[in-house]
Amino acid sequence: MAEQHHLVVTTRGRGSVDITDDIAALVRHAVANTGVAHVFVRHTSCGLAITENADTTVRRDLETLMQRWAPDGDPAYRHDLEGDDDMAAHARALLTGVCLTIPFSNGRLLLGTWQGIYLFEHRAQGHQREIIVTLTA
Amino acid sequence: MAEQHHLVVTTRGRGSVDITDDIAALVRHAVANTGVAHVFVRHTSCGLAITENADTTVRRDLETLMQRWAPDGDPAYRHDLEGDDDMAAHARALLTGVCLTIPFSNGRLLLGTWQGIYLFEHRAQGHQREIIVTLTA
Amino acid sequence: MAEQHHLVVTTRGRGSVDITDDIAALVRHAVANTGVAHVFVRHTSCGLAITENADTTVRRDLETLMQRWAPDGDPAYRHDLEGDDDMAAHARALLTGVCLTIPFSNGRLLLGTWQGIYLFEHRAQGHQREIIVTLTA
Repeated sequence: MAEQHHLVVTTRGRGSVDITDDIAALVRHAVANTGVAHVFVRHTSCGLAITENADTTVRRDLETLMQRWAPDGDPAYRHDLEGDDDMAAHARALLTGVCLTIPFSNGRLLLGTWQGIYLFEHRAQGHQREIIVTLTA
Repeated sequence: MAEQHHLVVTTRGRGSVDITDDIAALVRHAVANTGVAHVFVRHTSCGLAITENADTTVRRDLETLMQRWAPDGDPAYRHDLEGDDDMAAHARALLTGVCLTIPFSNGRLLLGTWQGIYLFEHRAQGHQREIIVTLTA
Repeated sequence: MAEQHHLVVTTRGRGSVDITDDIAALVRHAVANTGVAHVFVRHTSCGLAITENADTTVRRDLETLMQRWAPDGDPAYRHDLEGDDDMAAHARALLTGVCLTIPFSNGRLLLGTWQGIYLFEHRAQGHQREIIVTLTA
């Protein structure tokens, strides 16, 4: 029987928020002993990714690359209703994705030592972002 | 106990097909009340992605960016047996991915308001594309 | 009840290793008849992807593109403690992702004919890479 939880994460504009502890806390109290944590973000202009948790310059460099991959205000964009970061945010969300599946066992996420789970805000402004975590066994 | 369904989607060449309603219909009749819909496409030259469902220019702009990320007929490609779009299609499939996991509850996909589920055809010609949807609880 | 298995894959530096048979073997002996194989790699400088299994030039061309998307030793990188391939490897891992979900039925992965499951080593040197496979029904 799947367990489902809702989280709300407040972002401060473009950048990443570490949500590892939030997911780990749900897994710690899971009824199931062994299974998978499915993490899903209900938006199209932010994303979820697992990346290095030790040196914060990794995530800064990822932002540098994302700006190249999907530049703000590119003249080729047709979709720009909400500003220069609007279409860039959707494109970044395509590249990072909006869902992750992470194994757990004995109340612990089976992440590697250097892995953290991050919500990447792709819009320039901060937002309230809804995340659904489903634990299946 | 997982429920598994097969869908076939006909594409008309490069571009995206909205499959949200197809997945929602399966979830509506699911035996399980709460769980995850796993969507998987059995090909290497098309992909699955969740993106904005309101303004169609978003998906047009994504096509513009994908053409930059993986240009058709790039002189560096060694793999070009099936034409200029062949290797580009595999590269686009790497970036979009071929699997999605979407939570559901009470017979409804828990998508955000602006999220749609799309099959992205990455080949120039249309194809019949097989999708497997597994509902787990 | 989920079944969980640990695999270790030895890589020889940048490039891809076919792990399809390893996952298929676990599914062949699964207790569940129908479900999903969740594959997860516990690192931030390698990734998992499903791509063409017939012509090896596809994966060579993907390497060519990844070198463009995240060049080794880019002067913009701040994170370069472990050499020119360090940050590039994290960026490639973001693009390929670290988790896959693949449906199975009757002891067989439901991959398409041309789909293989690959571990992409993104570092220049070889590593021992830990993979967790969770089978849920």
